[in-house]
Amino acid sequence: MAVYTEVSLEDLESFLSSYDIGRALSYKGIAEGVENSNYLLHTDKGRYILTLYEKRVESQDLPFFLGLMDHLAQKGLKCPVPVHARDGASLRHLSGRPAAIVSFLDGMCITRPSGQHCEQVGINLARLHMAGQDYSGYRANNLGPAQWRPLFDQCGSCADDVAAGLSQTITRELDYLEGHWPFGLSQGVIHADLFPDNVFFIDNICSGLIDFYFACNDALAYDLAICINAWCFERGGELNATKARSLTQGYMSQNPLPKTDIEALPILCRGASLRFLLTRLYDWLNQVEGAMVKPKDPKEYLERLRFHQKASSSASYGLS
Amino acid sequence: MAVYTEVSLEDLESFLSSYDIGRALSYKGIAEGVENSNYLLHTDKGRYILTLYEKRVESQDLPFFLGLMDHLAQKGLKCPVPVHARDGASLRHLSGRPAAIVSFLDGMCITRPSGQHCEQVGINLARLHMAGQDYSGYRANNLGPAQWRPLFDQCGSCADDVAAGLSQTITRELDYLEGHWPFGLSQGVIHADLFPDNVFFIDNICSGLIDFYFACNDALAYDLAICINAWCFERGGELNATKARSLTQGYMSQNPLPKTDIEALPILCRGASLRFLLTRLYDWLNQVEGAMVKPKDPKEYLERLRFHQKASSSASYGLS
Repeated sequence: MAVYTEVSLEDLESFLSSYDIGRALSYKGIAEGVENSNYLLHTDKGRYILTLYEKRVESQDLPFFLGLMDHLAQKGLKCPVPVHARDGASLRHLSGRPAAIVSFLDGMCITRPSGQHCEQVGINLARLHMAGQDYSGYRANNLGPAQWRPLFDQCGSCADDVAAGLSQTITRELDYLEGHWPFGLSQGVIHADLFPDNVFFIDNICSGLIDFYFACNDALAYDLAICINAWCFERGGELNATKARSLTQGYMSQNPLPKTDIEALPILCRGASLRFLLTRLYDWLNQVEGAMVKPKDPKEYLERLRFHQKASSSASYGLS
Repeated sequence: MAVYTEVSLEDLESFLSSYDIGRALSYKGIAEGVENSNYLLHTDKGRYILTLYEKRVESQDLPFFLGLMDHLAQKGLKCPVPVHARDGASLRHLSGRPAAIVSFLDGMCITRPSGQHCEQVGINLARLHMAGQDYSGYRANNLGPAQWRPLFDQCGSCADDVAAGLSQTITRELDYLEGHWPFGLSQGVIHADLFPDNVFFIDNICSGLIDFYFACNDALAYDLAICINAWCFERGGELNATKARSLTQGYMSQNPLPKTDIEALPILCRGASLRFLLTRLYDWLNQVEGAMVKPKDPKEYLERLRFHQKASSSASYGLS
């Protein structure tokens, strides 16, 4: 949860005067999104989310993200739609930060996903990939394999304070992944962060996807690997094979990936585990005083990594 | 800001099944209220605030607070109205905490109040006092003069770490207030915490008062003193006499207090300063790890106290 930048009513009203969305009736800082400040805004014309972009989100990337949401919404994907001001711009400034207003999306996050929820995630991830195919924007994945070793170097020697032997485990995994990372897989725009926090449901049906601020161009199957990690593991660290099958087969029902992509799933899952292990480790070791965000436990992703290291084929994830 | 207790969708849906307010379409943890966890809830029947009561709010006091809101709303005061479940109860349990749903109130907080805003606060404070006159509940002020010395004792010898000489200033003030505190003033239900965070405006007109969780029976003029401190001082620590006059005269236009009450304002303002100085000092010295709340600076209330110590009469606050 996070509201890093407080917006005064005076500043808000001045900001809204550039839009045609009516006058403000209420706005509340909401505990949603870790990277940015978000407000739920009611006007006499409707409900909106006002986002102020904080650290980590590069302002040069914002046109890619906002353009992507415009594009996906136009293709029929349920996602927040940027509101354009009267001058046509959706990206503006408020209280010293880049800021945008998007449409409000009904729906709620699931904390204990079932197989049905996982299937919904697979289906909607596939739809996102298909809708993104003709998006003209391009953004490299700045948390891809090439960035993992430098990220680990920044964590320094403190990894072993988090778990005994962690430093050696990461070093060996980096060596392996750098030597075996697959190239030539199907590419496209991926969400790259489709965790349960970012998928809304109403009556167990997906009502929308949010938080496109890690979206980038990368292997589609890598996005599926991220989702397997985020949705299909139980609290104790075990993969729930039923959920994995629901998720992967839900995906394939909409966007059947070629065999090469599927066969790469075990190593993609290892990479996806390492990516979140490293960013969580970094955040764990660099906790910001007063950021009002509790960092997530890196060790969860160490458990996932260990599972995938032993996975012999994509059959482990319900695909053959 | 605070969301101390996370509510899962599963728990929420089970909780809502006792009410007739439709099915949940969204709920967001909001950064409102320091003492409790608050969610803005949308259902297909409307908008609501769901509150889970946390530390500091005694559960035995909750029927007083909820009954008061029912009573005030029935008298026409703009405030959140508790929603009663099908069995008639407005106080229930959710995720291990006492919990209640109240109606959503449009309006926004002002960060830089003008004289007009202060007048609105005075008018609506008076209306609250009048509407509360025949409320049958009773709750003693557990942050009144008798509690100040024990509260200071709990801060121990650390006060001087916050400001040089603070410990002696507080001791002397306690001695003075205990010897001169006025009795026999007009009594009633007071809000006791009517800070800018708790007053909503639309187009500079007060649209409602919120957060009745400090409400209690005490001197009405003491509530006015709390508001003078909360609304009429500038950042540099000076009283803005125009705002004070607007606030007190706004109050008197609705609920003219007898002369004895008015004459007590200087000492009531000293008491109100000491009360917030002490609770802020306590919170400052007892910061809770991970509470995600930045404690407020106690020194602001030292400045106010010093102003009131020099005030010779209620004329300092725009009343004669």
